[in-house]
Order: sequence, then structure tokens, then C-alpha cells
Amino acid sequence: MKLPLRLLQLLQALRRLPGVGPKTAQRMAFHLLARDPEGAQALLRALEGALEGIGRCGNCRMFAENGLCPVCSSEARDAATICVVESPSDVIAVEESASYRGRYFVLHGRLSPLDGVGPTELGFDQLIERFTSGRIREVILATSATVEGEATASYLAGIAREHGLRATRIAHGVPIGGELEYVDAGTLSKAIAGRVSIED
Amino acid sequence: MKLPLRLLQLLQALRRLPGVGPKTAQRMAFHLLARDPEGAQALLRALEGALEGIGRCGNCRMFAENGLCPVCSSEARDAATICVVESPSDVIAVEESASYRGRYFVLHGRLSPLDGVGPTELGFDQLIERFTSGRIREVILATSATVEGEATASYLAGIAREHGLRATRIAHGVPIGGELEYVDAGTLSKAIAGRVSIED
Repeated sequence: MKLPLRLLQLLQALRRLPGVGPKTAQRMAFHLLARDPEGAQALLRALEGALEGIGRCGNCRMFAENGLCPVCSSEARDAATICVVESPSDVIAVEESASYRGRYFVLHGRLSPLDGVGPTELGFDQLIERFTSGRIREVILATSATVEGEATASYLAGIAREHGLRATRIAHGVPIGGELEYVDAGTLSKAIAGRVSIED
Repeated sequence: MKLPLRLLQLLQALRRLPGVGPKTAQRMAFHLLARDPEGAQALLRALEGALEGIGRCGNCRMFAENGLCPVCSSEARDAATICVVESPSDVIAVEESASYRGRYFVLHGRLSPLDGVGPTELGFDQLIERFTSGRIREVILATSATVEGEATASYLAGIAREHGLRATRIAHGVPIGGELEYVDAGTLSKAIAGRVSIED
């Protein structure tokens, strides 16, 4: 079936979205064209607006519309603590936990020399600049619990300590509500190694 | 977490795509903004092009770029047979089966009075115009095997017969390669009721 060129182009563009294969792209394109042209218009305008207006926060590299993100421009946030995360989604997850009142730094990745991701790509210079500002006391390393995430955390912890800052790592262990029998061995061994005393 | 307005607008627009919930929309938006701004540009241009350039074939209502779709403009296709389907995806599926050399008619839906989908929305006038053209001999009703699809098929079969045309329905039964024990009861009862003689 020879589809119109512009339809093929739309299918191809939709397939660049994460998790979208040929069948899903077709479903999306046909939905937009046949049933929801207004939705297609809305997506068009939203993409235009986002590409034009959304940049990175000059301080923490989170998405921001004008210079600084809401967290960095809020005086209510503790400027002495930086939570270092891999992605903007991690910032949102931590914010949703409502358990953190400090600021952030988004790496947009993790150290992965084989993929060409090094300190430059992750903005280490910018982070170290904040370390030397004299306002920081603690750096919480909240990178993922993967080999590369751990490497990134331990590398940054070294730099933080060199600057006289306290470096901490978020705790890993059994999730709340999790049954031991369904927890994988790696997590369980972390949970046992990292056990804490029960005080009354 | 207060996200930038334009980012929220992008999330909202992405959620209009079929099968995209809040988490998927976030993953898509962050991917486009942080890792693939070129992909976002490509999607923007593709949407623009598709909205501008893709319309419906004047004859069969399939997506088409200029007036007629490739099937309707091809002299090699049998103009005496119309296969009536519910959606453009169905045309692609039938074309991929390489078992049909006639033309199509896309309803873009099926009769569903409760949702306000009646003969007008499905283009029955346009289809009946083709019935009266004098070139058609057979109408294959390939609407879905749902209650509404069956109702649509039997309604159209009545009209086709009034115009002296042969109305047929695609066969329903056990899929090729399907094991009987995994076939649902409805399909199996259709398959038994529609059994055909074995001739040598």
C-alpha cells in the first residue's frame, strides 16, 4: 500500500517518540488525522511553544521557561543542600515525595564513557562552580542504583569531599509495602548491609 | 512541582494521543526536550505537513494527498468490487494480505446511534452514489465482528441488494495457526455454523 508521502513522514516522526513502534505510530497518526485534527493542531502549537520557550535553568539545568526554575528562584528552598539527579523526571519524583526542601542539579544522564557521556556532557563544571560558591554544605547523590549511576555518585562524592562538603547517597533497600519474597537479591543484600539500629 | 506552562501544555497535548497517559506523556516530552530536539522539530514539521496536505480520497475516503488515493487512481484495480471497511488501518491490513484487487470505501467508524454516528457521518450517501454508478457488481462488507460492525454490515447489505448488487461478508472463524482450545466460544460457534464442504 503506497501511503501519501506526508503521512509516511508523520509516521516516521512519531516513531522517534520513546516506546512508539510502527503499529502505535499508525494508530496515533490515524487518530489525529481522522478523529482529532484539533488535537493535532494543539500538539503542533504545544511543540512550537515548548521548542521556543523551554530552556534549562541556569542554576540546576531543570527545564525552565525564563532563566531560573521555580525551585532555584524560590527563597523558601534551602540553598545549602543540592540533590543531584539524572533526569528531570527524577526532580518531579522527589518533589512529589514532599520530603526534600533543598535545591537540585540535573545531570541529564550519567557517566558512560562508552556512549561518549563524560563530565562535560553532565555539566560537572557548573556543579563544581556551585560547590565552590561557599553556600553549599551537603550534596545528596540521588543517581540511579545502576553500575553507571553508582560510578557517577562516587565520582561526584569525591569532588564534593575535596571541596569540604558532606556527600550523601540516598538509601537503597526494600520498598515500603514490599514483601521480602518478591524483592530481588541485589536489593535485599543492600538492605541487609545497610541495616540501621532500632532505637526507642 | 510547578512545571513551566509551555511544558504543561506539551504534556496535555501529548495526552490526546491514543494510549498515552500522564507518565508516558512526561517521558515523551522530556525525551523530546532533553535528548531529541531535532525529533521534536521533525514531528512539528510532519504535523504541519500532514494537516495541510492530507485529505480524504474523493472516491473512497481513504487518506490521500491529492484528490484520489493510489488505489482509486490505479487502472489495475477492479472497479466492479468495493470492500467496505471501518478505518484506514483496515485498508492497510487488507492491502498487506495481498488478497484483494478491488477498490475500497472507508466508513471512518460504524453505526452507533448512541454516540451520534449515523449514515451521514459514515458517508453512506457517497457510497450509495457509487452503488448507482452502474460499474459495481459486488460489495464486500469487511466491518468488524462486533455488534455495531455487524449492524453496519447488514444495513449496507440491504441497500446494496436494493441496487441489484451482490453483498458479501468476510468469513469469520478460527484464525490460521490457531489452536481450537484457545479460540473463544463466539468465534468457534461462528466457525462451526459457517463450515464449508470439503471437495477433492
